[in-house]
Amino acid sequence: MAVSILNERDLHFMLYELFDAQGLCSRERFNDHNQETFEAALQTAKSVAARYLLPIRQKTDLQKPEFDGHRAHLIPEIKTAVQAVVDSGLASATADFEHGGMQLPSLVACAVSAHLTASGMSVMGYTTLTNANANLIQAHGSAEQIQKWVAPMRAGRFTGTMAMTEPGAGSGLADLITKAVKQPDGSYRITGSKIYISGGDHDLSDNIVHLVLARIQDAPKGVKGISLFIVPKRMVNEDGSVGEPNDVALTGLFHKMGGHAITSTALNFGEKGGAVGYLVGEANMGLSYMFHMMNEARLFVGMGATVMALAGYQYSLNYAKERPQGRLLSEKNPESAPVNIIEHSDVKRMLLAQKAYAEGALALCLFGARLHDDEKTADTPEQRKAGHTLLDFLTPIIKTWPSEYGLKANHYAIQVLGGAGYTNEHPVEMFYRENRLNPIHEGTTGIQSMDLLGRKVPANDFSGYQACLDAMQRTISQAAEQPALKEYANALAEAIRTLDSTTKTVLAATRAMSIDAAFSNSVKYLEVFGHVVIAWMWLKQGLVANQALTAQPGISDSEKHFYQGKLHTLQFFFRSELPEINHWAALISQLDTTNHEMQSEWF
Amino acid sequence: MAVSILNERDLHFMLYELFDAQGLCSRERFNDHNQETFEAALQTAKSVAARYLLPIRQKTDLQKPEFDGHRAHLIPEIKTAVQAVVDSGLASATADFEHGGMQLPSLVACAVSAHLTASGMSVMGYTTLTNANANLIQAHGSAEQIQKWVAPMRAGRFTGTMAMTEPGAGSGLADLITKAVKQPDGSYRITGSKIYISGGDHDLSDNIVHLVLARIQDAPKGVKGISLFIVPKRMVNEDGSVGEPNDVALTGLFHKMGGHAITSTALNFGEKGGAVGYLVGEANMGLSYMFHMMNEARLFVGMGATVMALAGYQYSLNYAKERPQGRLLSEKNPESAPVNIIEHSDVKRMLLAQKAYAEGALALCLFGARLHDDEKTADTPEQRKAGHTLLDFLTPIIKTWPSEYGLKANHYAIQVLGGAGYTNEHPVEMFYRENRLNPIHEGTTGIQSMDLLGRKVPANDFSGYQACLDAMQRTISQAAEQPALKEYANALAEAIRTLDSTTKTVLAATRAMSIDAAFSNSVKYLEVFGHVVIAWMWLKQGLVANQALTAQPGISDSEKHFYQGKLHTLQFFFRSELPEINHWAALISQLDTTNHEMQSEWF
Repeated sequence: MAVSILNERDLHFMLYELFDAQGLCSRERFNDHNQETFEAALQTAKSVAARYLLPIRQKTDLQKPEFDGHRAHLIPEIKTAVQAVVDSGLASATADFEHGGMQLPSLVACAVSAHLTASGMSVMGYTTLTNANANLIQAHGSAEQIQKWVAPMRAGRFTGTMAMTEPGAGSGLADLITKAVKQPDGSYRITGSKIYISGGDHDLSDNIVHLVLARIQDAPKGVKGISLFIVPKRMVNEDGSVGEPNDVALTGLFHKMGGHAITSTALNFGEKGGAVGYLVGEANMGLSYMFHMMNEARLFVGMGATVMALAGYQYSLNYAKERPQGRLLSEKNPESAPVNIIEHSDVKRMLLAQKAYAEGALALCLFGARLHDDEKTADTPEQRKAGHTLLDFLTPIIKTWPSEYGLKANHYAIQVLGGAGYTNEHPVEMFYRENRLNPIHEGTTGIQSMDLLGRKVPANDFSGYQACLDAMQRTISQAAEQPALKEYANALAEAIRTLDSTTKTVLAATRAMSIDAAFSNSVKYLEVFGHVVIAWMWLKQGLVANQALTAQPGISDSEKHFYQGKLHTLQFFFRSELPEINHWAALISQLDTTNHEMQSEWF
Repeated sequence: MAVSILNERDLHFMLYELFDAQGLCSRERFNDHNQETFEAALQTAKSVAARYLLPIRQKTDLQKPEFDGHRAHLIPEIKTAVQAVVDSGLASATADFEHGGMQLPSLVACAVSAHLTASGMSVMGYTTLTNANANLIQAHGSAEQIQKWVAPMRAGRFTGTMAMTEPGAGSGLADLITKAVKQPDGSYRITGSKIYISGGDHDLSDNIVHLVLARIQDAPKGVKGISLFIVPKRMVNEDGSVGEPNDVALTGLFHKMGGHAITSTALNFGEKGGAVGYLVGEANMGLSYMFHMMNEARLFVGMGATVMALAGYQYSLNYAKERPQGRLLSEKNPESAPVNIIEHSDVKRMLLAQKAYAEGALALCLFGARLHDDEKTADTPEQRKAGHTLLDFLTPIIKTWPSEYGLKANHYAIQVLGGAGYTNEHPVEMFYRENRLNPIHEGTTGIQSMDLLGRKVPANDFSGYQACLDAMQRTISQAAEQPALKEYANALAEAIRTLDSTTKTVLAATRAMSIDAAFSNSVKYLEVFGHVVIAWMWLKQGLVANQALTAQPGISDSEKHFYQGKLHTLQFFFRSELPEINHWAALISQLDTTNHEMQSEWF
């Protein structure tokens, strides 16, 4: 079976028809780019993925990293693949030309990453984390730190990690206890244990740059006393060469159900008296710097989950088109030939759900990337601020909705394949296992929901919230003018009224009851908001598709089918999925406190 | 952390307070039993599980069976464990005393199996399949066949499989092509390939008894031309000793994402001219015999999924009670001590959902087992027929609802543990992987939904359907008399009206539109019915709990807490879960044909 890993027609639709990637080229930063250079980058990604990542995808899943008591060892193909990605320039797709980057818009870079991720999500974890680490130091480090650490990371000589979680604290960063003690030379000595550090040890690079959260002596308690340190695996000499080992010990590997190519490590800092660390920026500002990286990482998690959903959808679609089995219910002749399973209504349902989830999530992630471009490069300060405000607001949704529904999409991909789906003869069970990590790492769905309802919604006098609602209203106004879309425009308007009244009710309730009780359905609130936002993304896609079909009657059959598919999936999402919010919203609005009132001893 | 694998107080509640296990002892077949003998069997299961299964649970997950090109090899601990289960008598818990069985009611045997399954679901696959195979031959085979094959399976010398699926046919049994040619001696020669045969090869037993579906030459096309054969791995001599190999070749193992202890095999029959097979019962009746076994297997799948859900719930509950992390949202003092995560409302929500799914599913499975006892041993023919009718009707729901919602429960178990949940330091990710098989094997959710809507509902002039609705109405009448339960009695009555009107609408629609279109939301119909049935199971539990609390004011605090937990979970299910059916029912009743109308080329 010839397998298309991703639907390139759809990527084209998203970039050029939906989000106007070509329009970005008029901005100064992207002046040297045009649709051809974007396409060249996409084709490079596709070919690097096909040559280096796809051939080892299953092998990296089956041959997990090994721990010899001191170090972690990977299969050597991973090093070759990571180096190929770095050498192709794709690992620094958005970085400045002068730093060896491609200076691509985030929108296009996100589509580029889709090709790589589909063929090797966990291998790409090394470059993604390294890039995010480098971006953080570039934004908040000193000139000397940038020179010493960022340059070799951009070149692929060093890799980077973020080391936040501690065994005793988990997501509760306020309670982290890793210690930093200042030395006469201005450096610090770091002592403590960190867990779940992705890429925390391996044999891919000359050095590993850990970004470590720790407390300087006598710092304030809680999150306001956390600082950020560069703690290299090995010391780096004045001339940039790698020297003696630092006091950082690998104590073990975690074995996750998916994402096997990237090590998940437990690290001890300072077993021999203290690991050398260098303060980034100001003391006690560590968490706000780390959130810079975390926000970027959250968008990547959403995109990774989306790509797994897309890849599973495409794989199960191809399978369904080619696998004959059974007959239609209406066919009573046992001597008739079996039909391909795509003809069965229930298989269509599972494929439609996958398409709705995966392409809805893709539109959302690319919309987020486009907002990131606006934040950085839009023409006016107002536009840049607007981009920032909306992206910041949407971040918990971009992280969470694709993670939850991408996993559900992969569930259906397995189900379409039946008994074959859960064997490793097909990759869909691997996508499913890899995707199971996404609703947890970089902030669980529960944490994201409290971030949305408790922080993002009321922040700055509801400015992000209102900007989101206003943007949706603009799409509704456009759609209401097209007869074929009027039904959906009205449905989205109604859904927004439900959302808005739910929002007001639950926030008002915090004055009458404890916030723990009022927020006890916060995850349902995030689901309501997520579904409304994805419905919006489908209405946006429907607008473009409907215009293409009505304005270009002479387009080819395959183009017609593409747009008809978009409109039909819009219909599916609005009829099957969007109405789910009514029950969830009712539960929240009734201030149901069943969860909160449950007592520990009643379980 | 001391981990209780299952909640024994709840098993006691289900057996003696909800389903009157002790009442069964007045039936002739169970005259020798009483609550003490039941408890003895349960304790035996618990101790065999603790001694032989739990210690190797993770090892069987990590060390998968190996194929040397000829045979499959397991770690030797599996043989020891299977033998221990057989020697304890638990493998034949329901079989007659005279055949070495314990002659336990199915209700009690089901609870016994929970202890074993929780500690080793896939190891138990060997004995479960062997038992189902032996039961089928006992029911439909000749006296000689019973003597030759059943006796050694009961003794643990032989194991059994069912070999249905073929590479070209999958679930489409009508298209299977394995051939059977009659020989002068009355035996047959079997030629064909079968896949996904659980336990199809291993080194646990002296012989393997395959029950193989095949077509005799010139048999009718389709499902009416399928016969059932006993095809042993090795021939058996007149004296019962094992002789030469039969012409059955293991061609490979499938590697599934879960359930690693039991091999999933590809077998070739007749590579050297034809495997010797013996016809069971009459020619062309094979599928109806196999459905005897399949129905039993479907109930086991539902129970297995339930037990994984129970085990994941219990594990994550224990974890949540002992893991300090974070503070309540209302706690603003960063110097306050972290709380155990069970205090967080969102963690309570995930535990409540697990309790609602797992204990709701357990009640349903045990209710099914109790119906099986009624079918076999109730006092009057009418009662036996009533048991059969209702169990037959509920089978697709008992198979599917626990499979789908048990998996969802395991999703939450992982989520409660956060980053620890997807590592193999805890078993919840394994439960999740094992449970992912259950919505597929023994008939996918899609197939079950069409069985329910297309066959079970209209069968015998709606007699099973009506019996189910009547039984629910009886519970509603009882509950309506208790003020604390009136709200739920009314809600269930309303839900049944919704279900009934949906049923009538969709079946009437098959006269106006194609059945493929009318049934295109059959899975949603199964979800509606499943949710109504589980709501009923929770109302039944609520009745007992409410009576216990009102009638026995002097009970201990821990007893009070147990019953309060039941009532609070009833509230959770009725407020959070049951209302989901309204949207699904509306979609079906509106005869939405979005799925059906999707065209293959639009994807």
